[in-house]
Amino acid sequence: MASYDLSGKNKYYTLYEGIREDILRGAWRAGEKLPAKRTLAAELGVSVVTVQTAYDQLLAEGYISSKERSGYYVCPLDITGRTGKSAPLSADLSAEDKGGAGTGVGAVIADFAKGSAPAELFPFSSWAKLMRAVLSDCGEHLLERVPCDGDTELKCAISAYLCRARGIFVEPERIVIGAGAEQLYGTIVQLIGRDKLYAVENPGYRKISETYMLNGARCAFVDVNADGMDVEGAISLGADVFHVSPAHQFPTGAVMPASARARLIAAAKASGAYIVEDDYDSEFRLVGKPLQNMYALDSDRVIYLNTFSKTLAPSMRMGYMVLPPALYKRYVEMFGRNSCCVPLFEQKTLARMISGGAFERHINRLKNYYRGVHEILLEKLASLSCLNELRDSASGLHFTVKFPSAPFDGSIKERAMELGIRIKCLSDYLLAPRTGCEKTAVVNFSGTTREVALAIAPA
Amino acid sequence: MASYDLSGKNKYYTLYEGIREDILRGAWRAGEKLPAKRTLAAELGVSVVTVQTAYDQLLAEGYISSKERSGYYVCPLDITGRTGKSAPLSADLSAEDKGGAGTGVGAVIADFAKGSAPAELFPFSSWAKLMRAVLSDCGEHLLERVPCDGDTELKCAISAYLCRARGIFVEPERIVIGAGAEQLYGTIVQLIGRDKLYAVENPGYRKISETYMLNGARCAFVDVNADGMDVEGAISLGADVFHVSPAHQFPTGAVMPASARARLIAAAKASGAYIVEDDYDSEFRLVGKPLQNMYALDSDRVIYLNTFSKTLAPSMRMGYMVLPPALYKRYVEMFGRNSCCVPLFEQKTLARMISGGAFERHINRLKNYYRGVHEILLEKLASLSCLNELRDSASGLHFTVKFPSAPFDGSIKERAMELGIRIKCLSDYLLAPRTGCEKTAVVNFSGTTREVALAIAPA
Repeated sequence: MASYDLSGKNKYYTLYEGIREDILRGAWRAGEKLPAKRTLAAELGVSVVTVQTAYDQLLAEGYISSKERSGYYVCPLDITGRTGKSAPLSADLSAEDKGGAGTGVGAVIADFAKGSAPAELFPFSSWAKLMRAVLSDCGEHLLERVPCDGDTELKCAISAYLCRARGIFVEPERIVIGAGAEQLYGTIVQLIGRDKLYAVENPGYRKISETYMLNGARCAFVDVNADGMDVEGAISLGADVFHVSPAHQFPTGAVMPASARARLIAAAKASGAYIVEDDYDSEFRLVGKPLQNMYALDSDRVIYLNTFSKTLAPSMRMGYMVLPPALYKRYVEMFGRNSCCVPLFEQKTLARMISGGAFERHINRLKNYYRGVHEILLEKLASLSCLNELRDSASGLHFTVKFPSAPFDGSIKERAMELGIRIKCLSDYLLAPRTGCEKTAVVNFSGTTREVALAIAPA
Repeated sequence: MASYDLSGKNKYYTLYEGIREDILRGAWRAGEKLPAKRTLAAELGVSVVTVQTAYDQLLAEGYISSKERSGYYVCPLDITGRTGKSAPLSADLSAEDKGGAGTGVGAVIADFAKGSAPAELFPFSSWAKLMRAVLSDCGEHLLERVPCDGDTELKCAISAYLCRARGIFVEPERIVIGAGAEQLYGTIVQLIGRDKLYAVENPGYRKISETYMLNGARCAFVDVNADGMDVEGAISLGADVFHVSPAHQFPTGAVMPASARARLIAAAKASGAYIVEDDYDSEFRLVGKPLQNMYALDSDRVIYLNTFSKTLAPSMRMGYMVLPPALYKRYVEMFGRNSCCVPLFEQKTLARMISGGAFERHINRLKNYYRGVHEILLEKLASLSCLNELRDSASGLHFTVKFPSAPFDGSIKERAMELGIRIKCLSDYLLAPRTGCEKTAVVNFSGTTREVALAIAPA
């Protein structure tokens, strides 16, 4: 077994990859015990630390588990990637989902339950080039303290980008840089208060309400219909904050029409509530121009929030929000003595990527790419033998398909798994019980390559 | 005025530095209006955005202020660095402190109110070399998602370091990487609960209680005496969490003796409370060996916490904590689906710096350097004509000096300012009223170079 070639630079990583591959292709079977660290280290001629690090990584990613005083064991394949810390972003697969798992990971051709962009689409070489340039240009300035709201250069770059790409004018000063969406959600609770009621979309992206609640706030789950969050329902609850994604709701794909946006803003104005406009994938409207941002309609009541997870990589851990003047003032009062928790190095690199135009060129390339994937998927669906109702706003990287003739949600996922497709249903994203979300699959193709889309067999 | 040489690469930064220098040396006077952006841009032959960015940076750092529809004005020198977002970490100087400010920043020789290491001590070239190596070795792996508790390689490196340097054995798995101390304090509240009572040291580092309270927790302020936190006082309050820095308390410099540590641990055990052992500057015990960590005495009740702010740079925004098994389990349950908010790139670079030995070599160099600064300061103090009582545990980068004959605290600071020394008193760090902290200056020399120490005139 121990035939890993560890002559390269990063021994532990090579070993980790080798074992992982072997597990995935079934050379190591579930329940099998891995060799003891010392034994493997001696066999491979590497240090015990190298083996330990590789095992730790496999452990962290759920490929193996450890039993005290016994050793390391291979985990069953069907839970790979779902268990523990390294699970995908929305890993809360319901029990019924496990029905199709028997076919094993090896058989999965397409994974529509995952949300991250294929790594090969990231413009790594130009990013690395910018990093090298920043390192040599800024030098020791990179060690300077970054103000709580982020580096001025990045804030200016984002302000100019928002003007060019979204047609909204934002003073650089009012932009706050944060380490990804969750950190910004947490800051919103600290700013507005944890004694307030936060209305979130149902079904929705579970981490929004989870983060609000982790920060001590109360959440109300408001139904999302074809027009986005049920505005009247949300208003009647007397919420203090409305967290919406009007450009393209996840997972329903709903786009909030201008009239609903206006009503929500009027309500927020009347009651002094705030709207969080979560614009997480607005860059990917594949056809036509996006609707005007809610922020453009009322910059006093709307907090505009976006990240670089969809456009660059989730591991980038960078996002930003634009605060209304009153909240920005409070932000500086509360956090003025803190440092921004995103390293200056990453901020400067991103600033240059945006102001040099590479960021927008990358988004355009991505859009073209995804447009191709989207077309292939629609063709495949058209040839699908069972009846289905497609709901696709072409405004982002996911759409929904209803299968009215399916007996229940689990059967859709089972049937998909037989075709090598891992998929989730709207019901998997329910945060509170409601009707109207039955028998609907969510096709999230942000992690799907053209090759994968082509490889899916028509049913 | 507009004679800045902007031929270099980073125009905005050069312009920013030029104006800042001019303000500091008095070429621009307080209240003077800076040229309009367009005028200056035209004069210098650069874009308006370059001038805007430079002005924004000066604004952010408090060198200039903006008046709506009027322009930018130079701020009075004596508030430079204290105002707004970019103020030093503990910028809450009391009103009396302003007494000596008339001499202006230009006259300040030494600043003992600042806590960050001189930038020239940071091993920038070796850090940049490691960054380049990580970039080329890890390549696109740098885009992979980082588990919520951080990169395994860094966790293993810290575990090995803690074993070598502090003699404590910590399983890498139980280490959690975070973006600096404040983020970790916030996580502690989310883990242990905001309905709990957090005992903090008084006087103390204000950000600890501020961050706990921002996260919704209640704080009790417990007096610090010569032996550190008053253990019996803390216990009688029935706190659920004791936040202590037993190795070297800031600002009193107290070191908690073994007996007090044992009593606190026994109390925590009996009541199920947790102890946060904040080891923020333990690397800098200048004489002898540090006391055994509290974590080594009880890894079930003690959370060990440390950052790289003192050893590397505060802008690094990296720290870690070691969680007791029960809390680690809870951490994974609560945050398992989040990503670590420190970029993988910085984590890998630091991991290599630690495992390659460069980190410890750097600490040793720093220690030698600070030992020299410390000696010079003690000599200067010995020659000081007024009576003083020095309290110096030689276990960190600050000590206290009592001036019993001074009429009041403000007069110490005024006299120091006449000698070109900015200093704070124990009373500036009081979080709740108490006695026993009068007429005592805090000499924080972590930001003091040898040259500065030598330049101080004996009184």
